[in-house]
Amino acid sequence: MDVKAYVKDVVKSARKASGSIARATAEVKNAVLEAMAQNLLRGRDRLKEQNSLDLQAGRHAGLSEAMLDRLELTDKRIEGMAESIRTIAQLKDPVGGVIDGWTVPNGLRIQKVRVPLGVICIIYESRPNVTADAAALCLKSGNAVILRGGREALRSNVAIQRELARALEGTDIDPKVVQLIETTDRAAVPELLTAEGYVDVVIPRGGKGLIRTVVQTATVPVIKHYEGICHTFVDAGCDMEMALRICENAKCQRPGTCNAMETLLVHEQVAEEFLGRMAPVFEERGVELRGCERTCRILPGLQPATENDWRTEYLDLILSVRIVRDVHQAIEHINTYGSGHSDAIVTKSLRSAELFRQRVDSAAVYVNASTRFTDGGEFGLGAEIGISTDKLHARGPMALEELTTYKWVIAGDGQLRS
Amino acid sequence: MDVKAYVKDVVKSARKASGSIARATAEVKNAVLEAMAQNLLRGRDRLKEQNSLDLQAGRHAGLSEAMLDRLELTDKRIEGMAESIRTIAQLKDPVGGVIDGWTVPNGLRIQKVRVPLGVICIIYESRPNVTADAAALCLKSGNAVILRGGREALRSNVAIQRELARALEGTDIDPKVVQLIETTDRAAVPELLTAEGYVDVVIPRGGKGLIRTVVQTATVPVIKHYEGICHTFVDAGCDMEMALRICENAKCQRPGTCNAMETLLVHEQVAEEFLGRMAPVFEERGVELRGCERTCRILPGLQPATENDWRTEYLDLILSVRIVRDVHQAIEHINTYGSGHSDAIVTKSLRSAELFRQRVDSAAVYVNASTRFTDGGEFGLGAEIGISTDKLHARGPMALEELTTYKWVIAGDGQLRS
Repeated sequence: MDVKAYVKDVVKSARKASGSIARATAEVKNAVLEAMAQNLLRGRDRLKEQNSLDLQAGRHAGLSEAMLDRLELTDKRIEGMAESIRTIAQLKDPVGGVIDGWTVPNGLRIQKVRVPLGVICIIYESRPNVTADAAALCLKSGNAVILRGGREALRSNVAIQRELARALEGTDIDPKVVQLIETTDRAAVPELLTAEGYVDVVIPRGGKGLIRTVVQTATVPVIKHYEGICHTFVDAGCDMEMALRICENAKCQRPGTCNAMETLLVHEQVAEEFLGRMAPVFEERGVELRGCERTCRILPGLQPATENDWRTEYLDLILSVRIVRDVHQAIEHINTYGSGHSDAIVTKSLRSAELFRQRVDSAAVYVNASTRFTDGGEFGLGAEIGISTDKLHARGPMALEELTTYKWVIAGDGQLRS
Repeated sequence: MDVKAYVKDVVKSARKASGSIARATAEVKNAVLEAMAQNLLRGRDRLKEQNSLDLQAGRHAGLSEAMLDRLELTDKRIEGMAESIRTIAQLKDPVGGVIDGWTVPNGLRIQKVRVPLGVICIIYESRPNVTADAAALCLKSGNAVILRGGREALRSNVAIQRELARALEGTDIDPKVVQLIETTDRAAVPELLTAEGYVDVVIPRGGKGLIRTVVQTATVPVIKHYEGICHTFVDAGCDMEMALRICENAKCQRPGTCNAMETLLVHEQVAEEFLGRMAPVFEERGVELRGCERTCRILPGLQPATENDWRTEYLDLILSVRIVRDVHQAIEHINTYGSGHSDAIVTKSLRSAELFRQRVDSAAVYVNASTRFTDGGEFGLGAEIGISTDKLHARGPMALEELTTYKWVIAGDGQLRS
């Protein structure tokens, strides 16, 4: 198989097909999404059959039990995919929205109108349900999508894509608007990443290694979904009960997520009392603490935190703890070691809250709430394709609007420039 | 000189300094901009002295008269730079604007607040006035800026940067917010383009070659200002007089700009009459026409247009002309050969206008007006750093708002995720 030619064909046909979904009305797109949900439910036996082949190969290749679990498509998970597509169908169509508009002195009427991006390429490593979810979000926002999933899930992903594409039969929408790269050949990835003029944006979802490779190779624009090294700063004179609850929630409620707390910063004035009460809670929840020198003096026997700990996204029941002088040092720590994802302060001080809010350079900055809320659904955006740690185009939860761009539409009656 | 170490130092100090400009109030920033304008005017002899050295070296190196003219700093041009900075000072400060906000059911108050991007790197080839203009736009929008100009203008650019940076003395703003790469060593460019974590975005302004290099090397995000292969489509049954005026304006008013028309598309039903009247106008204005086969039959003696002509940004008094069957073929031509910059239709037909408006995939789509209006000033945005041909983050004229991003600010009273 000539991978280059294959990918070229995929991106060209996606570009060509993109107009048909860009022009589709919300009504048509929603009907297609409903058909997709139904196809997944009706095709569940085919999906499970292909999935069992992936599982078998995965077991053979020595995948961990955790990975095999993530890979498995159960009835419940298939129903979940269908449900998720139906939820996306119910969201407001962003296409065609007039973002802004005015008339300039010479009478030209200028409008900024929301339009689809065109062709979106999603490169992911995760569970097969991303295939359905990402496709539905791209289609709802009027885009063609090219999916490139993990090699261990190829058969499952192909089966899902087939059900999705079948929903387009008999419509005016070109079925090439939902394509999956059906080879595990790694050479396909650089071809996608350099398909200028065909692919409008690449969204990598996965570990640091994947994202690094994408960034280094891509010549088409990339929106990164990097790691979350999230902090909570417990200020002097805060509501101690609230601080205990927020920190427990931010660390323990789902430690494997990007918006979970990885480093706890404590104001020196409350360090002794707070850590004395917090440590037993974490111990009970099975959280391993790694402390700065002063923390280790208050909580003897902790493993000391190294420079490397401040830069680590554990995604696990591990937490680094540092005692800081004041809110300024907390902000400096976050802006130095954080990943610009989500950071929180627990405080009663208006001045601390304002400083933190203004100076922490992160996608989401919280006052008196858990960092775990950084999520499209929790923010009320309905759904998300991921959480951008970039500053360009989209920052934080990326929902339907972030999968669009705009064009300037100018109406005149013969205006000339002088 | 160790270029890598030098650039590392520049980007690190820019990042460190960026907080001081991000936090500055509009009042402080405007006072700084006024001081910059005054410094340029008062320092005009120093500027002209350094500029004369650039001119001398340029002459020695055999630069064309046109290039030497672009390079020259006259009193009038220095006054123009100062004037331009004062205009930028008068624009509305985009920083701190609340883009959107709501309260979710659990009581969390969510706001999307406009904040500076951080550190912007501008790589340009053009006249030295870009140095002042780009710096003023970046500072007004709360960003630190790293400037990398053309080698032939280095002394002039350094002199301008000195005057700008001096305006920051005695303020709370770190003078490192306006830096210029003071070496012509080409090795500096890849260092800037891969300064992840320090540079938030690179904006290349210049020829196709420069932009290609930037795109291929960069690992930090880039906003491209590519070429403008702009079209005007003259529809059947349009206002012929209007079509003649618009086409003359779009081609001739300033042919060297990116929003000038490069290809004229004419509906076959009006081709004979329209081209018969248009050709003499173009002849009088010295425009060389290159036609499709049918055009050459109507206007014998024209040079035939090749496939290559449809893809060429002449930036000169040359125009390719094609007769098309209908608005659909015009749209297809534009979406195939255009550069997604600015395209116009002249028509009386609502249906043609709607089709064109909806289906032409360009940053600016005009109905009955000259493409020459694609410009921040003409759109009423006050000023522009350039015209983006990208779809991500900014499309079309990029003004102050496009030099910002947003952060999510969330206020709670102890909310936990369940």
